[in-house]
Amino acid sequence: MSKLKVVTIGGGSSYTPELVEGFIKRYQEFPISELWLVDIEEGKHKLEIVGAMAKRMVQAAGIDCEVHLTLDRKAALKDADFVTTQLRVGLLDARILDERIPLSHGLIGQETNGAGGIFKALRTIPVILEIVEEMKELCPAAWLINFTNPAGMVTEAVLRYGKWDKVVGLCNIPVNAVVEEAEILQEKPEDLFFQFAGINHLHWHTVVDKFGHDRTDELIQKMYGEGNSQSIVANIKDNELILEQVENLHMVPCPYHNYYYYTDKMLAEELVDFKNHGTRAEKVKEIEAELFELYKDSNLDYKPQQLAERGGARYSDAACETISSIYNDKRTVMTVSTKNNGTISDLPADSAVEVTCMLTGNGPVPYTFGSFKPQERGLLQLMKAMEELTIEAAVTGDYGTLLQAFTMNPLITSGDVAKTVMEELLIVHKKYLPNFFEKVPV
Amino acid sequence: MSKLKVVTIGGGSSYTPELVEGFIKRYQEFPISELWLVDIEEGKHKLEIVGAMAKRMVQAAGIDCEVHLTLDRKAALKDADFVTTQLRVGLLDARILDERIPLSHGLIGQETNGAGGIFKALRTIPVILEIVEEMKELCPAAWLINFTNPAGMVTEAVLRYGKWDKVVGLCNIPVNAVVEEAEILQEKPEDLFFQFAGINHLHWHTVVDKFGHDRTDELIQKMYGEGNSQSIVANIKDNELILEQVENLHMVPCPYHNYYYYTDKMLAEELVDFKNHGTRAEKVKEIEAELFELYKDSNLDYKPQQLAERGGARYSDAACETISSIYNDKRTVMTVSTKNNGTISDLPADSAVEVTCMLTGNGPVPYTFGSFKPQERGLLQLMKAMEELTIEAAVTGDYGTLLQAFTMNPLITSGDVAKTVMEELLIVHKKYLPNFFEKVPV
Amino acid sequence: MSKLKVVTIGGGSSYTPELVEGFIKRYQEFPISELWLVDIEEGKHKLEIVGAMAKRMVQAAGIDCEVHLTLDRKAALKDADFVTTQLRVGLLDARILDERIPLSHGLIGQETNGAGGIFKALRTIPVILEIVEEMKELCPAAWLINFTNPAGMVTEAVLRYGKWDKVVGLCNIPVNAVVEEAEILQEKPEDLFFQFAGINHLHWHTVVDKFGHDRTDELIQKMYGEGNSQSIVANIKDNELILEQVENLHMVPCPYHNYYYYTDKMLAEELVDFKNHGTRAEKVKEIEAELFELYKDSNLDYKPQQLAERGGARYSDAACETISSIYNDKRTVMTVSTKNNGTISDLPADSAVEVTCMLTGNGPVPYTFGSFKPQERGLLQLMKAMEELTIEAAVTGDYGTLLQAFTMNPLITSGDVAKTVMEELLIVHKKYLPNFFEKVPV
Amino acid sequence: MSKLKVVTIGGGSSYTPELVEGFIKRYQEFPISELWLVDIEEGKHKLEIVGAMAKRMVQAAGIDCEVHLTLDRKAALKDADFVTTQLRVGLLDARILDERIPLSHGLIGQETNGAGGIFKALRTIPVILEIVEEMKELCPAAWLINFTNPAGMVTEAVLRYGKWDKVVGLCNIPVNAVVEEAEILQEKPEDLFFQFAGINHLHWHTVVDKFGHDRTDELIQKMYGEGNSQSIVANIKDNELILEQVENLHMVPCPYHNYYYYTDKMLAEELVDFKNHGTRAEKVKEIEAELFELYKDSNLDYKPQQLAERGGARYSDAACETISSIYNDKRTVMTVSTKNNGTISDLPADSAVEVTCMLTGNGPVPYTFGSFKPQERGLLQLMKAMEELTIEAAVTGDYGTLLQAFTMNPLITSGDVAKTVMEELLIVHKKYLPNFFEKVPV
Repeated sequence: MSKLKVVTIGGGSSYTPELVEGFIKRYQEFPISELWLVDIEEGKHKLEIVGAMAKRMVQAAGIDCEVHLTLDRKAALKDADFVTTQLRVGLLDARILDERIPLSHGLIGQETNGAGGIFKALRTIPVILEIVEEMKELCPAAWLINFTNPAGMVTEAVLRYGKWDKVVGLCNIPVNAVVEEAEILQEKPEDLFFQFAGINHLHWHTVVDKFGHDRTDELIQKMYGEGNSQSIVANIKDNELILEQVENLHMVPCPYHNYYYYTDKMLAEELVDFKNHGTRAEKVKEIEAELFELYKDSNLDYKPQQLAERGGARYSDAACETISSIYNDKRTVMTVSTKNNGTISDLPADSAVEVTCMLTGNGPVPYTFGSFKPQERGLLQLMKAMEELTIEAAVTGDYGTLLQAFTMNPLITSGDVAKTVMEELLIVHKKYLPNFFEKVPV
Repeated sequence: MSKLKVVTIGGGSSYTPELVEGFIKRYQEFPISELWLVDIEEGKHKLEIVGAMAKRMVQAAGIDCEVHLTLDRKAALKDADFVTTQLRVGLLDARILDERIPLSHGLIGQETNGAGGIFKALRTIPVILEIVEEMKELCPAAWLINFTNPAGMVTEAVLRYGKWDKVVGLCNIPVNAVVEEAEILQEKPEDLFFQFAGINHLHWHTVVDKFGHDRTDELIQKMYGEGNSQSIVANIKDNELILEQVENLHMVPCPYHNYYYYTDKMLAEELVDFKNHGTRAEKVKEIEAELFELYKDSNLDYKPQQLAERGGARYSDAACETISSIYNDKRTVMTVSTKNNGTISDLPADSAVEVTCMLTGNGPVPYTFGSFKPQERGLLQLMKAMEELTIEAAVTGDYGTLLQAFTMNPLITSGDVAKTVMEELLIVHKKYLPNFFEKVPV
Repeated sequence: MSKLKVVTIGGGSSYTPELVEGFIKRYQEFPISELWLVDIEEGKHKLEIVGAMAKRMVQAAGIDCEVHLTLDRKAALKDADFVTTQLRVGLLDARILDERIPLSHGLIGQETNGAGGIFKALRTIPVILEIVEEMKELCPAAWLINFTNPAGMVTEAVLRYGKWDKVVGLCNIPVNAVVEEAEILQEKPEDLFFQFAGINHLHWHTVVDKFGHDRTDELIQKMYGEGNSQSIVANIKDNELILEQVENLHMVPCPYHNYYYYTDKMLAEELVDFKNHGTRAEKVKEIEAELFELYKDSNLDYKPQQLAERGGARYSDAACETISSIYNDKRTVMTVSTKNNGTISDLPADSAVEVTCMLTGNGPVPYTFGSFKPQERGLLQLMKAMEELTIEAAVTGDYGTLLQAFTMNPLITSGDVAKTVMEELLIVHKKYLPNFFEKVPV
Repeated sequence: MSKLKVVTIGGGSSYTPELVEGFIKRYQEFPISELWLVDIEEGKHKLEIVGAMAKRMVQAAGIDCEVHLTLDRKAALKDADFVTTQLRVGLLDARILDERIPLSHGLIGQETNGAGGIFKALRTIPVILEIVEEMKELCPAAWLINFTNPAGMVTEAVLRYGKWDKVVGLCNIPVNAVVEEAEILQEKPEDLFFQFAGINHLHWHTVVDKFGHDRTDELIQKMYGEGNSQSIVANIKDNELILEQVENLHMVPCPYHNYYYYTDKMLAEELVDFKNHGTRAEKVKEIEAELFELYKDSNLDYKPQQLAERGGARYSDAACETISSIYNDKRTVMTVSTKNNGTISDLPADSAVEVTCMLTGNGPVPYTFGSFKPQERGLLQLMKAMEELTIEAAVTGDYGTLLQAFTMNPLITSGDVAKTVMEELLIVHKKYLPNFFEKVPV
């Protein structure tokens, strides 16, 4: 039997059982022989709990796969076939700060596209680039499958600064949209072609049925028309976008568009949560605590129901299906973050985009999208520039570049408040931002 | 003697004496033989006052030029050589609404790039396109020199929807910047090469001296460094941008960048003005009333000092110099709104941009700029898309398109407040927005 | 049973039995109920022969499909679901002139990319655009599947001048390459991903296997390395390209590259054929005569072996599979001519390209290709410009535009010889070139 | 008095007196204090002759400028202000081979855009890149003014591989065209705006007069209409392009277009010259011998009339005016080779183009050109790709890349003849092609 080794960095995450379940389900087509769960000293306790549970799951499934737990990342990476990254630098406590500090100044924090997302990128990108350097040495043929948010910026950093092309960025939003919107249209997902285009957490899509009819406008009416509302991610509350706006797009926006299209309502809701200590980060921390209590149960050898609430529905499917598609050249149609290369004419060729692809043995091959209408184009180009600045700041530690990212971000009011929030975040996250070290006042 | 006919639409404007002074000054090189001041019924009274004054100025100067006052635009346009547009649909009262209604909901109004600017475009573009149609018939060889704000959108509408290439959009900001910044650098303007690139009221520039040294960073320190602050337009208060941000640009922003780079302070200041009934529109109305009192003086035959306060410093120079440059193939270097055509690689080739050009007998020939860094690119692309949507809405009267423009505008908070402000403005300006007629509730 | 109507224009072609066989084979998935074979008065005799044979084939297969023969194109088009075009304006005699006249002046004629191809485009495009106008009226939901050469230019004419998007241009070269090169690599075609990019008869491809390994360089060695040679189209003789050149491409060229990469040898061979009255057109005419003799046999109710020699191997598969893929939303991976839309960054977005696509119910969705290296880019851009000029000349009948196409074509020596050959061809094809009528001397 | 040092590499060239004359004429505005003429051992004899003459010219002019002759390039470069390159690797004998060897196989040789030009690039680029490295060390503020052909490829090599931006590539064709075509139009050159766009020896231009009227079509009639013909370079014989073709361009082609637009006649003429040992290279060698005889005359202290025949008319003006424009920030309008940067949308932003620029203290600032019509675009893109391949081959010594350049070049018939000619040239030029050393058979 040939070796098939998967390494999961951030293996102590509460999501790990999702992933283990996904591998078990696909064992026939993807005969994983080693699963290495890697974490850092601070995450050791969680790694042990979730690692033990992973071992029980594998044993219960009766598959021939060794589960290794380690803090030694290099040992784990040696000869890996696939490396998945689901790490969180600074743990959930950092996310709480990412969300609460901006809100304390009247700004949306948001761990992927607000001020919080910018700082998550600053903390994460240097670590990911370190991992890439290790991969070049220890497992140069492996694929890097990244779920760590902000997934688009991380993917672009790997491509542009890591000079590593074998990377796929993953998000469960497109997978969920396909399933849920097919249901709304009363069609089978496989009878529809969803074409997504944009960047992570800022994309739009169209839907065509098997008869070649564009069903997007109909879907918009069903989703946003009178009496309807929807949300497909747990951390964004149900929300009605303004129908006339979505109609004018002739494309379905993603749930994170609520932040850009309905900023006032989103902010108002988040301020309520802020006041009640119920920000998404705080809720997730509670859920995680409960999950780890469950995981400690030495009889539990399957993914508990409660994990679904955590917000990662179908993450496992997205991740394991991507891995298996590459391994088996399955040619699955999936929406992932990958190199643009002209797929979207409005964005730089070497940037990361989130687009519908065919997954082959050689990774994602995107379907051509072309150009957006100004409706989508302007915001998309703004956010891509914001991402470029954030990534550059993460790599260089340059204060002015980071300030540009803050200024450009449409969820951040520019000026004194932007500068103040930015500096507060630099101070509280100082230990995770060595590149900025000298620039941060004590 | 050959005829040389200039037609000024919106001739009753308080700016007209600026223009007349400019023509008088240049009479040797630009021997204007007929100046037609055109206005509409509502502006008849002002036209008579300012027209009488124009006649006195011409007479005092002893030049051989007939001044005609008329409400018959077609009669005026017949065989014109140059047509200038400085009209204001709905007069200053419309501007007051443009500024106050958004502020009453906590948003910057701003007559060029905020909610107010969008509505000024909606009111103005259909009128300008009508003028273009008349020019095609009555003076097909004439140049259209537009000063009406938002000058960039008006120029793009003329190019794209009017299919009329002989148009130049003018703004006094670049002219002023050249004069004032040369002074800051203690150089003569002609010893410096300023290259501007962007769109009207959202451009950046670099400065190189005659030795080929880039002086931009030095200028930034002198303008924004400790203890310095500057403003070169009357309707934007002195303001200090954040030094680190401007340093990171390595380009000098334009005064309107305060709105995007220092949104919180700008809004705070405008809210104070709103409370005190001292918005820019209200102040301008007062100034204008005073100016017209002066103009009534039948002894006044020169431009009064007070006109400078009106905010149009060097408008006359920009306009008359542009006209004379085209007439005389002077090859003056000037920054104007014209067709992009690849000058800025980041914007559509057929859009209007404000860039440094050489003015020839065949109009502006831009100097190649190339690509912006992400610092400038993102915001610029966003605003261009916002402009495209606004222009399209002006032409089609489409509610959804207009809502997209509102949503995309970074000075407008998206969501309920955007929609509310937009609808209020639609209602108050209804009579100037026939394209939207059916869509606007009574 | 619902109607499923296919109309074949140029139904009297010797290829028709290929097509009929393809439909019979796919009847389960594509239950064609009516096949209309349309031809013109000049082709009536051939239509009757091949039509009778088509009826025998359908009857022998026992499928429930009516075969109609008609000279009334409009009657045929009414309510069609798919329209295929395989017409030849001027019949094979025109092709003989296309090939022999250039050769008589020392130039390659070539019915698709030489002087002959330019004239085939001139004759064909006006007829195709007429058909498109009729389709807009009579079968606006139908797809146009074009096999008529030059297939790329015809497709672009339909897109750009016909303003008709539901068109697919087909060629059997990619289909053949997949089958034959898989064999060379000793792999199953479905285990390889061939990505083709370029334009009709001028494309390159890469091959990746299911393990994600790029096998292109290996394939190049096997095809062009010492002792090897190959050809996959009947009208291009086996030929060895220069190994170092193909190695440097890192892409496999198409057989028509012989014309551009080995012009001297190709011309020498064609001159021999010219002398022996054995040009491809003359050979095809002989083959066709023999085929029609066979078709007259009222016992023949299956595709005769000899048809294979005609050069259209797997045309039927390409065509019928494309049609069935659209009808059934089969998502087959196939290489066809379609709108570029950014798939190849080096070519205009609105031009036709021949690229690997997924065929859905809504037609082809291309896989993003990106940019070519200069190796491929220069020639490709030249030929696309040549195509644009040819199409424009076909539509406008402009002599100067046609002369530019001749000058630019790398198979035509520019200058007197180009002009002479062009004028000779204009004269002999005069009756098929009404747009040029007045410009052609008698 | 401040130092102003010019270094001329290839100082022994027969052109040097042109240059010296130009500096003398401009001494008031460009007070050159040191002129260093540098050559190599092989050119020492010529350097001494022409150097002595240069000294006499300077003395006769009574200007305060030292003339230094040296074989020590580094000593010369130290603290230079301007470096001009007019070197010829392998001297005229290499050019004779470049022209005769291709002709011996029936191909146009041509020292800039045929097979000969490719080899001139191969020999020259490595030397120029060496000079650039020395400049980085010895005179990092200096400008490199290159006249060495192929001037476009040399400029691009300096930009792309030398990473040196302070370079201008010069050619006298645009200067000559302006003077001669103004005469044809009976206008003063300063009353016309010529806009050139393309690459060195493959550009087109338009002409607009001071009234804004496009005079290009009129000029085309006067230059190419019945009974007219023209040529403005000495090495291209008078030739009539085909009027209909030039009319269709609506742009004036450059003299080198004869090679692409009238290949058959050009080749026929060159074959006659080949037979008579009268190729351009051979003629130039004769002229040079005569010139050096003249230069030896110790009484000659001015540029002799005969130099004009050499073909470099107005080279001196182009070069000295460029240098003085940069030194004095004169803002002269001139057409030079510089970085594209989007000036021509159809070519890569980082490639060298020959376009109309304003020459400032910071070098050339191009006027935006935009996109070409397919008429010009295809050939231009082909030749740019050919240039990119040639430059890459010059730097890497890669045989396959060079073969691609040969295959793509429209003046070279591809296939066996291309390969044969290429290999012959590799062998004869072996000592100047160290990068190719191992690949070239003995």
